[in-house]
Amino acid sequence: MLDAVTTELRVRVDAELRRFMVEAGAALNAVGSDLETLTEAAHSFVLDTGKRLRPAFCYWGARAAGAPDKDSLVAAAASLELLHACALVHDDVIDRSAMRRGRPAVHEHFARLHEARGWSGAPDAYGDAIAVLLGDLFLVWAEMMINGSGIGDPALARARPVLDLMRVELMAGQYLDVTEQALGGGSLERALRVTRYKTAKYTVERPLHLGAAIGDAPPELVAAMSGYGLPLGEAFQLRDDLLGVFGDPDLTGKPAGDDLREGKRTVLIALAVEAADPAGRSALSAGLGDPALDKRGVERLREIISAGGAPVRVEAMISDRVGTAVAALEGDSVDPDARRALVDLATAATLRAD
Amino acid sequence: MLDAVTTELRVRVDAELRRFMVEAGAALNAVGSDLETLTEAAHSFVLDTGKRLRPAFCYWGARAAGAPDKDSLVAAAASLELLHACALVHDDVIDRSAMRRGRPAVHEHFARLHEARGWSGAPDAYGDAIAVLLGDLFLVWAEMMINGSGIGDPALARARPVLDLMRVELMAGQYLDVTEQALGGGSLERALRVTRYKTAKYTVERPLHLGAAIGDAPPELVAAMSGYGLPLGEAFQLRDDLLGVFGDPDLTGKPAGDDLREGKRTVLIALAVEAADPAGRSALSAGLGDPALDKRGVERLREIISAGGAPVRVEAMISDRVGTAVAALEGDSVDPDARRALVDLATAATLRAD
Repeated sequence: MLDAVTTELRVRVDAELRRFMVEAGAALNAVGSDLETLTEAAHSFVLDTGKRLRPAFCYWGARAAGAPDKDSLVAAAASLELLHACALVHDDVIDRSAMRRGRPAVHEHFARLHEARGWSGAPDAYGDAIAVLLGDLFLVWAEMMINGSGIGDPALARARPVLDLMRVELMAGQYLDVTEQALGGGSLERALRVTRYKTAKYTVERPLHLGAAIGDAPPELVAAMSGYGLPLGEAFQLRDDLLGVFGDPDLTGKPAGDDLREGKRTVLIALAVEAADPAGRSALSAGLGDPALDKRGVERLREIISAGGAPVRVEAMISDRVGTAVAALEGDSVDPDARRALVDLATAATLRAD
Repeated sequence: MLDAVTTELRVRVDAELRRFMVEAGAALNAVGSDLETLTEAAHSFVLDTGKRLRPAFCYWGARAAGAPDKDSLVAAAASLELLHACALVHDDVIDRSAMRRGRPAVHEHFARLHEARGWSGAPDAYGDAIAVLLGDLFLVWAEMMINGSGIGDPALARARPVLDLMRVELMAGQYLDVTEQALGGGSLERALRVTRYKTAKYTVERPLHLGAAIGDAPPELVAAMSGYGLPLGEAFQLRDDLLGVFGDPDLTGKPAGDDLREGKRTVLIALAVEAADPAGRSALSAGLGDPALDKRGVERLREIISAGGAPVRVEAMISDRVGTAVAALEGDSVDPDARRALVDLATAATLRAD
């Protein structure tokens, strides 16, 4: 039953996103018909795929605080998907990821279009340029969507500081992540801090807090959301770390072992480096971040990572955190329907995909 | 006297920016001391230089509508400088410009820092990544600054749609600009459209409209602002086009002939291509957008552009547009103090720098 509730919410989030994007696309096309290529890329990026996790946490954060189920709430929650679109499009430029959600990343799409049309200049530079601009547009649209959601001025005034904090933390987390890779990473503590800012707060805790602000939640409920959101967000990132190394490309939408090629300094990698013998450690150090890493190289690194037991330890960390998250929902402050949905979401967000 | 008014406003804009950036920087540093490098780069980019043109147009747009002179208005106007910081930082990544305002561009600064510290990975990729993130932060901060300016909820509610339109038009103009370069450009009409969206609306008309919305201006005043803002904005971009080819690097803060190397498809270039003989046209076509263009190559292209009379025609277009702009301020709807300041700004924004 709760799975149905989650699916129904997703359909409503999609409908609100479609409504907004049709309007935003029309405004963009009004500048000139040559904007249509950009509009189409924007539509397809937002509307064709996406798990809508952040909108779901925001929506249930508000419902947990007793806010009524309204389309305006769904629209406000859905706006987080546009912020996330900005984060993903820019992140793919930053990480030089060619694939996203099983298709060419935005920068890659426009680079290939440039190439196919035989335009002047470097295709990759053109692709990067358009992806930077489209990411900026998504950030602006996210703001426009929540402002126009109809949740009312008092709710917006409560929501805005949370949204601001969330966006600053997101950029700070990305900065730490990129810098950690440049530093060559290694420490478990530092990898956990990146996880906290880049994912735990951004994906779970702040969306819940945004909903809580819309619903005018009391402080004890906001605290309960942190108690649930932070460990769950960490668990979500830890699952993502495992998928980035061991995931099935058909399910992740990214090439096998992409995180290894990008040299991501995850908790999984920190644990693997700790556990490896000198030979394994030097193989990890040489292979991580090598863009030319082939299938065999990926396989070899996977073996080293598995041999040291890091994946098993990460699985245990995930279970542990999901347990802590769900336990934080006990008590009287959380509405029972919302609690059931949040427990369901905890599973959905951290499920093994294999 | 009016020059003093403009200088005084600039000092006040700087003070509001400083106040905001100190607070925003403290919030960022709270994430971790390793964010300080980013905070310092952000401070220095915003606070050390900049003409504060967009805040001035916004401020005088509000004053023209009879809004009282308040610090909250100055703070709201100053927020446009943070939006502009986003545009510039991302633009430099897009154009691969190494210099901005006489110093290394943000992406260049962080690439050199990466190199100097001997970090892992490619320095340029690191520099680009941080510049993309810092531009995003500037966009978020711009929003936070106007929301926190204290102009009051009704003024903010009137201002918001103008700001949204302005930001979407900015990104659309940038998209057209980048795509025009990729297409190899050429048509005067298309170059003028890029100028209109990328600069005329963004630099002059919309900042004035934003001020007009804050001051609750009647429709005839909003129309007068377009009558002044659009031609003046075009004149400003035409001046910039001339400076991009013929400007003194000490004054522009960019290497001589940088626009030629970047292959910018400006009105100046469109006119030069029109006027050139076949040999000149093929030299222009070969040299424009060649990153390896040296001092002699720049000199040669300058001679071709000058020989066809394009710079003289562009100077005439500038004078013509400044005249039209100033004439649009006549009539009863514009407050006399504001009119004097706007006439003064028209000169300041389009002055020959040689």
